[in-house]
Amino acid sequence: MPRPQKHVFVCATQRPPGHPRGSCAQKGCAEVSDEFMFQYQQRQCFDKVMVTTCGCIGPCGQGPNVLVYPEGVLYSGVSKDDVAAIFDEHLLGDQPVERLRAPADMW
Amino acid sequence: MPRPQKHVFVCATQRPPGHPRGSCAQKGCAEVSDEFMFQYQQRQCFDKVMVTTCGCIGPCGQGPNVLVYPEGVLYSGVSKDDVAAIFDEHLLGDQPVERLRAPADMW
Repeated sequence: MPRPQKHVFVCATQRPPGHPRGSCAQKGCAEVSDEFMFQYQQRQCFDKVMVTTCGCIGPCGQGPNVLVYPEGVLYSGVSKDDVAAIFDEHLLGDQPVERLRAPADMW
Repeated sequence: MPRPQKHVFVCATQRPPGHPRGSCAQKGCAEVSDEFMFQYQQRQCFDKVMVTTCGCIGPCGQGPNVLVYPEGVLYSGVSKDDVAAIFDEHLLGDQPVERLRAPADMW
């Protein structure tokens, strides 16, 4: 596995129903990470991009959260329908998707 | 949660015994991630460092693997006893621990 130019971390944290912090799982992160993996396979960009699930990265109430390094760009409230834009504009086009970024006071 | 200066991802991937790829879990990653969390609490560096577990990042046979962004430095074969050096020299001192880095042909 070569070192990727863009590394996407999709939060996969689960907490029990009723937990005060909620979780990205409750907000549909499995569908989001599945879509990232599907589009990754479609684009065959294995030498440029890596997609990895991860544990909690903080702002659970605004999930699903997706973090892209090396820039450290956090996307919050990501839906399945947002994944293509993140892939094409940011991961392959190198321009973060401003409308999906977490607020500056959150990250 | 503020945006961290250093974000540590500790692979937490588990696979069944006998799986041909092995896994970081089989090689003791739980002890490594516990030690990162323990030393994180001890150092109270909450505004600088974030520690997160993650899914597979590739070189399973050389785990436990630990990845630090934004630099994208991969450490392989990390043991509990290596964690203090990564914390003090790299996460707080900004100098990667060369002796623990994954080989250049691996990452």
